[in-house]
Amino acid sequence: MGILVVGSVALDSIKTPFGDKADVLGGSATYFSIAASYFTDVSMVAVIGEDFPEKHLTLLQRKGIDISGLQLQKGKTFRWKGEYGSDLNSRTTLETQLNLFADFSPKLADSHRTHKYLFLGNIDPDLQRSVLEQMERPRLVACDTMNYWIENKRDALLRTLSLVDLLVINDAETRQLANEPNLIRAARSILDLGPKALVIKRGEYGALMFSPKSVFGVTAFPVEDVVDPTGAGDSFAGGLMGYLANVGTCDNAALRKAVVYGSVMASFNVTDFGPQQLSDMTFTEIEARYREFCKLASFDNISEKSAEGKAFLL
Amino acid sequence: MGILVVGSVALDSIKTPFGDKADVLGGSATYFSIAASYFTDVSMVAVIGEDFPEKHLTLLQRKGIDISGLQLQKGKTFRWKGEYGSDLNSRTTLETQLNLFADFSPKLADSHRTHKYLFLGNIDPDLQRSVLEQMERPRLVACDTMNYWIENKRDALLRTLSLVDLLVINDAETRQLANEPNLIRAARSILDLGPKALVIKRGEYGALMFSPKSVFGVTAFPVEDVVDPTGAGDSFAGGLMGYLANVGTCDNAALRKAVVYGSVMASFNVTDFGPQQLSDMTFTEIEARYREFCKLASFDNISEKSAEGKAFLL
Repeated sequence: MGILVVGSVALDSIKTPFGDKADVLGGSATYFSIAASYFTDVSMVAVIGEDFPEKHLTLLQRKGIDISGLQLQKGKTFRWKGEYGSDLNSRTTLETQLNLFADFSPKLADSHRTHKYLFLGNIDPDLQRSVLEQMERPRLVACDTMNYWIENKRDALLRTLSLVDLLVINDAETRQLANEPNLIRAARSILDLGPKALVIKRGEYGALMFSPKSVFGVTAFPVEDVVDPTGAGDSFAGGLMGYLANVGTCDNAALRKAVVYGSVMASFNVTDFGPQQLSDMTFTEIEARYREFCKLASFDNISEKSAEGKAFLL
Repeated sequence: MGILVVGSVALDSIKTPFGDKADVLGGSATYFSIAASYFTDVSMVAVIGEDFPEKHLTLLQRKGIDISGLQLQKGKTFRWKGEYGSDLNSRTTLETQLNLFADFSPKLADSHRTHKYLFLGNIDPDLQRSVLEQMERPRLVACDTMNYWIENKRDALLRTLSLVDLLVINDAETRQLANEPNLIRAARSILDLGPKALVIKRGEYGALMFSPKSVFGVTAFPVEDVVDPTGAGDSFAGGLMGYLANVGTCDNAALRKAVVYGSVMASFNVTDFGPQQLSDMTFTEIEARYREFCKLASFDNISEKSAEGKAFLL
């Protein structure tokens, strides 16, 4: 039940109130793959240049990720430089060098065409669709997008959305895509565009999932030491898809747990620069945080099933 | 197990993208009392002027609220005029006329000194403390505050906080009070100031509750037709305290449910101007929305207990 992910692999330079780091391993496919690797087999399709450090490849291989689809080309790797404000919620992009990523045109190897789970990272919606067309129809297709494509390639994006099962975006993108300030109405109208479910990432506030007959909401795991939010959304998507591929079902119950596993992976990811912490987890720690999430979010019948109900005020 | 609430009663003029309304019944004590009235007996202490319309008194009495502590004085009622932006998240205060509220100095009647539950609405922290000192020690004391008091009467506020059990404020106030941008660290340091639990209201994102040994988080109920967010925080507090007074326990299990009942009341309140919708509920509708909240927030073992688990994607 392996996952194929198509997206960016980047070298990030990140500044937060906690320090600077240059040439950190980054990109949507990277964060997604590392997060998903704890749950299932992952193959990544992306492009890198001659400047890409060997140690980053070693890390991806150490996580058991299939990097045969990582095309090494003549030129430079995609580079992003950004700075976070003091509360880590606001981010300023200081520099974007698309480099080889500007002409990225994913060609799938035969071995990648039959993956049952596909995640289309945030790339040109025409490329997303070309990847999907190269595959035997996967069991589940999820995708991400961003304000740039919503503004500049809306028609292409709508064609792609008509073919995906699950759209995973943030609240600003949800409102922009639907052209509707009310998030709930926006979500309903996006479900009319094709996706069978919409997962809305709300950063420190948590996540919402809409499907035609169900709404699910969960708060984010409260993290005391947020160091670098880069990649939180992609590690969320990686945990979500990884869990779904692992359990092999896509019903509403599995999707809800998948959203929580996504939140778990994002909560680990933000506690160090780049994907450093995310790469150093054990499945036992992931499971333990999932159980903490259950405690964090439960309120009905709590007194009957846990010590959390114990009196503490009076 | 009645609640005493001290706060403002106001005449609000509200402009939202959905219309204008002048001289709407408002104020923290109003929203709190109406929300709490579905759960328990409520007595309000506040000041009104000669301009206060009889119909507003009639509404409060119709909800069974004890308004014997509503002091009618010579002069004008507190007036607030505000406008909401298109997404209803940003609010601009156009005018504040404190009027009689400027010299409000609550004197409790004997019948109000023995209430077991006390909610100190957002007023001068010295007045909050003077109210508490007039009472026999209640079983549970909760309070609200705002940026103005945090900035300008910090020492008085800290003295008040050392005496309360439950602080109910929003995230900006939490960060400001603790002087700490990380919400979780801010919450922990506020618990050192006296309150045994801190409930953080996050508007459309939900609520978090911190106590020394437990964290609870819940998303807001997704409301499709938000018309006027005025009073959401106070109706949240009213539902929360009303539920606690109703069940007569203050353990962690009760507090978590109370936060959800608070969210239920806030979700009803925002669907019409002023407290109009909030005044027109039935307890059956409140209970039904609480059950919807349980469905909205559940993810563990869901397939075993509800139809929500049914496959819908594949």
